[in-house]
Amino acid sequence: RVNGDRLWDTIHAIAEIGPGVAGGSNRQTVTDEDAEARRLFQTWCEDAGLSMGVDQMGTMFMRREGTDPDALPVYVGSHLDTQPTGGRYDGVLGVLAGLEIVRTLNDLDIKTKHPIVVTNWTNEEGTRFAPAMMASGVFAGIFPKEEAYEKVDANGLKFGDELERIGWKGDEEVGARKMHAFLELHIEQGPILEAEGKDIGVVTHGQGLRWIECTITGKESHTGSTPMLMRKNAGRGLAQVTELVHEIAMDNAPNAVGAIGHIDVYPNSRNIIPGKVVFTVDFRSHELDTLQGMNERLMAEAPKLCEAIGVEFSAEIVGQFDPPAFDKKLVQSIRDAAERLGYSHMDIVSGAGHDACWINRVAPTAMVMCPCVDGLSHNEAEDISKEWSTAGAEVLFHAVVEAAEI
Amino acid sequence: RVNGDRLWDTIHAIAEIGPGVAGGSNRQTVTDEDAEARRLFQTWCEDAGLSMGVDQMGTMFMRREGTDPDALPVYVGSHLDTQPTGGRYDGVLGVLAGLEIVRTLNDLDIKTKHPIVVTNWTNEEGTRFAPAMMASGVFAGIFPKEEAYEKVDANGLKFGDELERIGWKGDEEVGARKMHAFLELHIEQGPILEAEGKDIGVVTHGQGLRWIECTITGKESHTGSTPMLMRKNAGRGLAQVTELVHEIAMDNAPNAVGAIGHIDVYPNSRNIIPGKVVFTVDFRSHELDTLQGMNERLMAEAPKLCEAIGVEFSAEIVGQFDPPAFDKKLVQSIRDAAERLGYSHMDIVSGAGHDACWINRVAPTAMVMCPCVDGLSHNEAEDISKEWSTAGAEVLFHAVVEAAEI
Ligand SMILES: NC(=O)NCCC(=O)O
Ligand SMILES: NC(=O)NCCC(=O)O
Repeated sequence: RVNGDRLWDTIHAIAEIGPGVAGGSNRQTVTDEDAEARRLFQTWCEDAGLSMGVDQMGTMFMRREGTDPDALPVYVGSHLDTQPTGGRYDGVLGVLAGLEIVRTLNDLDIKTKHPIVVTNWTNEEGTRFAPAMMASGVFAGIFPKEEAYEKVDANGLKFGDELERIGWKGDEEVGARKMHAFLELHIEQGPILEAEGKDIGVVTHGQGLRWIECTITGKESHTGSTPMLMRKNAGRGLAQVTELVHEIAMDNAPNAVGAIGHIDVYPNSRNIIPGKVVFTVDFRSHELDTLQGMNERLMAEAPKLCEAIGVEFSAEIVGQFDPPAFDKKLVQSIRDAAERLGYSHMDIVSGAGHDACWINRVAPTAMVMCPCVDGLSHNEAEDISKEWSTAGAEVLFHAVVEAAEI
Repeated sequence: RVNGDRLWDTIHAIAEIGPGVAGGSNRQTVTDEDAEARRLFQTWCEDAGLSMGVDQMGTMFMRREGTDPDALPVYVGSHLDTQPTGGRYDGVLGVLAGLEIVRTLNDLDIKTKHPIVVTNWTNEEGTRFAPAMMASGVFAGIFPKEEAYEKVDANGLKFGDELERIGWKGDEEVGARKMHAFLELHIEQGPILEAEGKDIGVVTHGQGLRWIECTITGKESHTGSTPMLMRKNAGRGLAQVTELVHEIAMDNAPNAVGAIGHIDVYPNSRNIIPGKVVFTVDFRSHELDTLQGMNERLMAEAPKLCEAIGVEFSAEIVGQFDPPAFDKKLVQSIRDAAERLGYSHMDIVSGAGHDACWINRVAPTAMVMCPCVDGLSHNEAEDISKEWSTAGAEVLFHAVVEAAEI
């Protein structure tokens, strides 16, 4: 059994770095706060006897040796970066539960055949630099690291430059490591487990995603002196596409969701009709056909809506993954562990994207979920109970030890 | 007759300070660029023999003495601040035409009975700090200077602090000056004069304005894992209010206009449903009843639209003025001057707000307009011809000299 109090304390110690304004965290990827959290995590890991490897995407691999020199490691982890107004548990729980597993093995003086590597993936959130799950995506060979380095944030800073600036660009080639298995514990970020009264979600599948960055171009002009019929108001294009996205999602619910979270208006002045609006549509579904159909409908209908009001629509995919199905054997070992430990559990589809979704492409992968209060996440008020965190870590512990073999 | 080439050259010399990215200007109020433009203007004025007064709102009053020590001055001017993506003529033309009038009087060695004071009003644009026409509004006693000092920009900086920082907070009490008359030349910022083929617009009235800052509050949550029916998407509230504003304006066109130019989305992350959106509605009409009716309809309908989708609407007026009617005698003197000089002219309603709209409350006031290409303003591509600028300055010259008496 893991030490639930110790895990809880490490979670709240990390949350002090990059505190939010309302009890959560603002520790966006490759910021000074990210670097500080990494150093604290490194110290804890080294104190627990782990040795560090860092790859060229900044991902941290903290290794506990196994007894068989030829055995591939079991990887366990998630991410320490947060949303600008993020919670204390999203990602953090999964990384620190990995550390707690190692500490528990140390306490019990248990050696495993396979090494265990606790992992902190860089830029899972994707807010500052799209796409999300960036480092795990490069690791899985989905896109080249050079492409990731060139991504710019809202201030025009490049991911590669910022990674170097904070001192966490490692030497290791990205994706060179081979894995025996990858396991990730994460909060659900949705309301289902809590509503069903279950301690544990056994994640069988995930939703696929399309992030479609749209640009609507109108014409900047004076709000007072431009006659109504001469206006090319890009803001009206945004309004119509916002409702279109909602309609497309509703037509496919409950098997899909859709919304616009990011919107930049230019030049954003009270007395200038918006000449340009840039925003990102987020479509998700666990059915590939549905996901593709949603994207196609947006691409067919949005340009027409915009044309009808004299503005132009263009779009580009800035993030995407197809719905993953996790490794059946590992999924079963998680189900068995929950059963064995006496936790109530159910199979669940992950609504959010996770590093596990990409690593699933290159290694046997599975995920454990624990409930969160009101299904709320990507909000500083995100909350879980210590019991939920402990239950999740315990199931993860059993699954990791089973994969790593004693 | 004024020297149209000299005026043209001074306009383009000022435009080099705070250059835009597309040929226009970015010289927002009380920035370092604003301070630099003020210094250049001060030098030119002093070279022309004018003496400077600066009030506690930073407004510059550059005085040419009259022959009658008891005569109140004739004021002439506009503003040197610009939009973030502003043109070269909006405001600048009116200030520098005032300087050109003085230079011409000097050339001709003409003395006037009334002093002439060339004026540069602070923060006419209102983009960085609402409301627009801020310093002229304080001058006219519409709101106290203390209220203006407390206005904050998007970075949380206060107007009063920034005015002090750039070194242009003067000693003079705001509004203490009494005026014989105030005259302002401005580009039309709309398409009417060009379409009608007129050199000069004789401004009889202006539109009134309401700036209504709206806040829609939903709930930040994850775009992937929050079920559609549990969402409180503030972005959808924005979408519906955007279309409502357009509908209200269209229902009152051509006697009214309406749009949303400023929109801030929180926390503005691709995978967070917007928890809050703040934006400003801009309604205008030259009919007071119409203007009030538009505002009332927004206040009645927007909360209902928002309630229906589970988000909350609140609003506050951050800028307003009622439709002004300019001084009949001065308006006639402008009409006469255009006629006398052989320029084609027409009566016109100003679509935009101007410092003259506030000063009209405390002194006999009138405005001259010249056309601009395609009616385009609040856009770096704003353009006028040298002929238009010269014609406008010449009509202004005649009106000023008539008011100031030789
Ligand atoms: N788990 C999580 O919030 N990941 C960020 C990527 C996503 O938007 O799903
Ligand atoms: N002339 C001008 O653009 N003034 C700014 C105030 C307004 O929005 O009308």
